[in-house]
Amino acid sequence: MIPTVPRLPDPELLARARLLVAPELSASLVRELERITGRGAEPLGGGEPGDGPLLCVGASLPEVVRAAATATATETATATETAVETATETAMETATADGRLLWFHSVNAGTDPLLAAGNWPAGALLTRTVGRMGERIAQYVLAWVLAECQAVPEYAAQHARAEWRRLPSELVAGQTALVYGTGRIGGAVAGLLRGCGVRTVGVARAARTGGPPVGFDRVIGADADAGELEGARWVISALPLTGATEGFFGAGRFAAVRGATFVNVGRGATVDMGALGAALRGGGVRRAVLDVLPEEPAAPDDPVWKLPRTVITSHSAGITADEDVAGDFAACWEAVAAGRRPELAVDTGRGY
Amino acid sequence: MIPTVPRLPDPELLARARLLVAPELSASLVRELERITGRGAEPLGGGEPGDGPLLCVGASLPEVVRAAATATATETATATETAVETATETAMETATADGRLLWFHSVNAGTDPLLAAGNWPAGALLTRTVGRMGERIAQYVLAWVLAECQAVPEYAAQHARAEWRRLPSELVAGQTALVYGTGRIGGAVAGLLRGCGVRTVGVARAARTGGPPVGFDRVIGADADAGELEGARWVISALPLTGATEGFFGAGRFAAVRGATFVNVGRGATVDMGALGAALRGGGVRRAVLDVLPEEPAAPDDPVWKLPRTVITSHSAGITADEDVAGDFAACWEAVAAGRRPELAVDTGRGY
Repeated sequence: MIPTVPRLPDPELLARARLLVAPELSASLVRELERITGRGAEPLGGGEPGDGPLLCVGASLPEVVRAAATATATETATATETAVETATETAMETATADGRLLWFHSVNAGTDPLLAAGNWPAGALLTRTVGRMGERIAQYVLAWVLAECQAVPEYAAQHARAEWRRLPSELVAGQTALVYGTGRIGGAVAGLLRGCGVRTVGVARAARTGGPPVGFDRVIGADADAGELEGARWVISALPLTGATEGFFGAGRFAAVRGATFVNVGRGATVDMGALGAALRGGGVRRAVLDVLPEEPAAPDDPVWKLPRTVITSHSAGITADEDVAGDFAACWEAVAAGRRPELAVDTGRGY
Repeated sequence: MIPTVPRLPDPELLARARLLVAPELSASLVRELERITGRGAEPLGGGEPGDGPLLCVGASLPEVVRAAATATATETATATETAVETATETAMETATADGRLLWFHSVNAGTDPLLAAGNWPAGALLTRTVGRMGERIAQYVLAWVLAECQAVPEYAAQHARAEWRRLPSELVAGQTALVYGTGRIGGAVAGLLRGCGVRTVGVARAARTGGPPVGFDRVIGADADAGELEGARWVISALPLTGATEGFFGAGRFAAVRGATFVNVGRGATVDMGALGAALRGGGVRRAVLDVLPEEPAAPDDPVWKLPRTVITSHSAGITADEDVAGDFAACWEAVAAGRRPELAVDTGRGY
């Protein structure tokens, strides 16, 4: 597929574009977006987008906006298919552009659902929010690792019973963590654990050359000897979901890391939940912290809530906060104003 | 007071000394002590200590052992008042030494209660367990800081209700922590927080020269301007209890750090509990994590359990674990075997 070079919105159109924001955005975030763009916000998806060019911020593009934008875009397709450098001149030709989508800023990092939902309006810039996801996921993992070592939920429960009793604690320094996935997120997780004295062993699916990446004491292959996995106190998965990782954590892998606590911040479907349940019930897996599940959200009667020594955290580890959205949007706005392509612009042809 | 140079137990007496261990020690720790000393253990404090020289491990010295040891020690006082170097020769003169305490290893770091309980048997070596207290307290603090940022207790409660719901999280990086006490423990706390991107400001009671100690971005005085305390997200106290620190955290100090969470890993009596309660009820203090209280343990009907947004953790942050006792005792044993004074030997005259 030929990469689709993201185009910048025409400055004059952008200057008079209406700001539409998704209704789920918080009032303080909306105020921040109004401040950055210097205009008042209107709700996105309330009906026909109406007059004028549009700048939208949200998680999904309402069908009525997409339809209007696509219809308008078709009329101006010749103009918008020229390159970024000539955008100013072409703007003259499309000065009305009613209902035209100039720019959509996604509050999420993954824009595949947005692009999969229908044709992307030609010439509309798409930017996304990455925020500090690696750092957030790393702090999530460290929080739950230390919570187990320091008996945080147990002390909270004791407090509620007005019970004064010392519980054993565990020093994480000197323990070993296996981190599946040695990319940006796995590396951030490993780096933070290492700062607490944890020995970090990365498990990479693809062969690597050179020394271990930052944050890891060493990196082994996914086909490593069971002996290399023994003695790990923590098994942390940051694996993406691909054909090769579906059901990756099965009975064999859980048996190889006997006695470890399993933390999943990757994708739910990388885990064979039957095998995890058996390993928890049999005592092979010490505890489980699951941010992700094969099917989300879990219904109240889902048996996953009854797994022993397990906590489920509602896919919150890599959440984008208001400050991430505002910060990333502001950076995009600044780049566009300076005539630069924002670093967070999505190639809508390639999908990321 | 003239320092009392700790004496080493005579090797021949130590070789045949009986190992007495406090009944509260865990079975696995006792096995480890048996392994290190190469002999079986007997209970400490079950009655008259009986025949032979003694090596004891515990928290306190039972009166019956103290009395027997002191009586025997008096007879051999002249011999034991000679220096370490001549210990081997003097041993010849005290070869029987029935009921004599050669060595007491304390499972705690503070030995002041042991020494305050009565005369310390002359010539008996006293060693203590320090373990990794600074590191433990630092991991405790980081665990509770991250637990609040990541809503750990709230997710545990949601899980118990089988509820899938994203809760807001907070990134600790970029926040500011005021750490009261810039010694070994305060420094360990600051160093670990700093590894998570927290800005660490130490508050020292005594004036310091030179740059901030390791772990701190800067250090200010306890009489610093209120302006220097503003904006702190975390206020962590590692202050010892002295005449100058009793009730140190009162209404004025809590008002100066408005909006912060207060974590106390120092001493309970450094806090004016009435002022803390008022600040929590008024919303000035965001949350409180109290490892220590002015009166411990708190009874089930103590109103402290009802303070809003507070958790009490039963003076557990600096707990000595079995591995600390075994590790520190093993190091002492090795030093004694090599004829060296153990680093953890207590000057029983000075008290530490």
